Amino acid sequence: MARAALNRSRVPVEEPTLETIRIPIADAFEQFQARWDDAFLCDVQLVGAVGAHLHRAFGKRFRPTLVLLAAKAFGKVDEDALRGAVVVELIHTATLIHDDSVDKSLIRRGLPTVNNAFNNDTAILMGDYLYSKAFSIMVRARMYDAMDLLAEATHRMSQGELRQIEQRNRIDLTEAEYMRVIDEKTACLIAAGCQLGALAGGGSYEAHSALARFGGAVGLAFQITDDLFDYFGAESVMGKGTGSDLEGGKITLPLIKSLRNAPERDRRAMVDMIKNREFRNGHWSDVVRFVTEYGGVEYSHARSMELAERAEDELKHVPDRDAREALRDAVHYAVTRHR
Amino acid sequence: MARAALNRSRVPVEEPTLETIRIPIADAFEQFQARWDDAFLCDVQLVGAVGAHLHRAFGKRFRPTLVLLAAKAFGKVDEDALRGAVVVELIHTATLIHDDSVDKSLIRRGLPTVNNAFNNDTAILMGDYLYSKAFSIMVRARMYDAMDLLAEATHRMSQGELRQIEQRNRIDLTEAEYMRVIDEKTACLIAAGCQLGALAGGGSYEAHSALARFGGAVGLAFQITDDLFDYFGAESVMGKGTGSDLEGGKITLPLIKSLRNAPERDRRAMVDMIKNREFRNGHWSDVVRFVTEYGGVEYSHARSMELAERAEDELKHVPDRDAREALRDAVHYAVTRHR
Repeated sequence: MARAALNRSRVPVEEPTLETIRIPIADAFEQFQARWDDAFLCDVQLVGAVGAHLHRAFGKRFRPTLVLLAAKAFGKVDEDALRGAVVVELIHTATLIHDDSVDKSLIRRGLPTVNNAFNNDTAILMGDYLYSKAFSIMVRARMYDAMDLLAEATHRMSQGELRQIEQRNRIDLTEAEYMRVIDEKTACLIAAGCQLGALAGGGSYEAHSALARFGGAVGLAFQITDDLFDYFGAESVMGKGTGSDLEGGKITLPLIKSLRNAPERDRRAMVDMIKNREFRNGHWSDVVRFVTEYGGVEYSHARSMELAERAEDELKHVPDRDAREALRDAVHYAVTRHR
Repeated sequence: MARAALNRSRVPVEEPTLETIRIPIADAFEQFQARWDDAFLCDVQLVGAVGAHLHRAFGKRFRPTLVLLAAKAFGKVDEDALRGAVVVELIHTATLIHDDSVDKSLIRRGLPTVNNAFNNDTAILMGDYLYSKAFSIMVRARMYDAMDLLAEATHRMSQGELRQIEQRNRIDLTEAEYMRVIDEKTACLIAAGCQLGALAGGGSYEAHSALARFGGAVGLAFQITDDLFDYFGAESVMGKGTGSDLEGGKITLPLIKSLRNAPERDRRAMVDMIKNREFRNGHWSDVVRFVTEYGGVEYSHARSMELAERAEDELKHVPDRDAREALRDAVHYAVTRHR
């Protein structure tokens, strides 16, 4: 139903791609790319080498796309919006690099992670470089509103990451605890990015508050979708294997919900299988069957659709028609994408 | 001679302790301690646990001492000065935690490092927590001048750390390359801290520029002294073994200078010993002899004394007599301390 609502206005229904979503901000996005590369101009060769590696392991650029569209939504994509897009992606990338180092991940987006291609030390220090580069860019441009938003968002993200470590292997994790972590880890940066885009675009207080709520809801939906991928994504598409969340002790929504729904005997068997880490020995398909059979997948999907609708609702007063449509498509993309 | 000049005004010559240095700011320092503990108030238990651990592995608090004295130097130690002291120490601590993780250090200040007492993941994420906490404190207090200074300093520090990785085991490292790294790694944060202290204290533009130069020179002298410790410090005093710099591939001033001074045959023998890592097998005393015999130690000592004098020169126009004397003592402490 949720999906039907989401698709209501689209005939024929086509899944939007990031390329089509970016049409209204095509020029600005090109400028973003150039500025992104500038962030790696540094007389320490290692910075350039990691930059070149990240350039190959090219990300979706979902966050900067939203920042630029949020600016366009209220009229103009100026220098501050461009810098905001760069800064948000720098902070996001720093987090990914530290995350991969923490999780000892070897592959991301089909290419070796920084800790794998270089080493752990480089990953730690390069993450620090990118974080501090982001703040240095904002300071130099005197973007104090953006700094307010992003200092808080970055701090909340770090709390979410630590909370996630604390919750590792906690098989009794509740949905509320899960939602809190994904809000901190993922949604708050997207919310801050959309808000600063709207600010740079000249939106009113009401406008940028609405865009912050929009970003928050999109972020949650995006992360729930990501966590579903860990059960169903194909390595060739996702660039990493399935089951890596559970492998790393991350209990996500499909499992949380199914553990709640399953009859006691099945629940207990699954808890044992996870505790004994049997899912690593040919039992992964049992886990996938469990989260499907007991409604965890369906529930997660419905939850992400509901959040997507909530996000769409926040776009009602966006004046720029093209940006509004593209932001709607971005919501759709967040919950239907294949990577 | 340099030492004589430094001691000129002191009869009898007594090595200052941090406790005596802090007398003019005793009350403020107590407030600093309380605020430091507040930075670890967080509903993620891990944050409190690491905070308690760091509380035991109590640092010298050299940087916040300088920040508070720099404020007192121009009249007042207000809320901004206190927050500045906390923020500088948070950034410093974040760097230490990431450094220890990168260097795989097990002991600091006589207690297990965070990567050792907890694990590497916690060290990475806790460093991020402390960095972002610092910026969050500044944003909430609207300390934009401090943010300008510290965003730049933090970014330069991260470049210095990466540069140091790039220069690992570079036996042909020059003195200029070494000085650049210690300026980035150590001096620039101390310079920023002294400058923001002077700013908070109400100093003029000239005044806080002088204090920035003061902090920069003290920072270099402090680091050169630290690097000498790696050759002569006793584990019981330093809380870590000697030789750990060379072990980690860090070529510091005593060795750089002695490699330059030594006759070709001895130089070549030392280069071979280092390349073959023979210094780990009972040959450490040969390295210590080499850096002593060929003047690297004497030169490093003279260099730190010269920088200390340069720092003292910057204090000429400091109006508050007590703070001025304490800052002089702090310089003296930086180059004569035993830990």
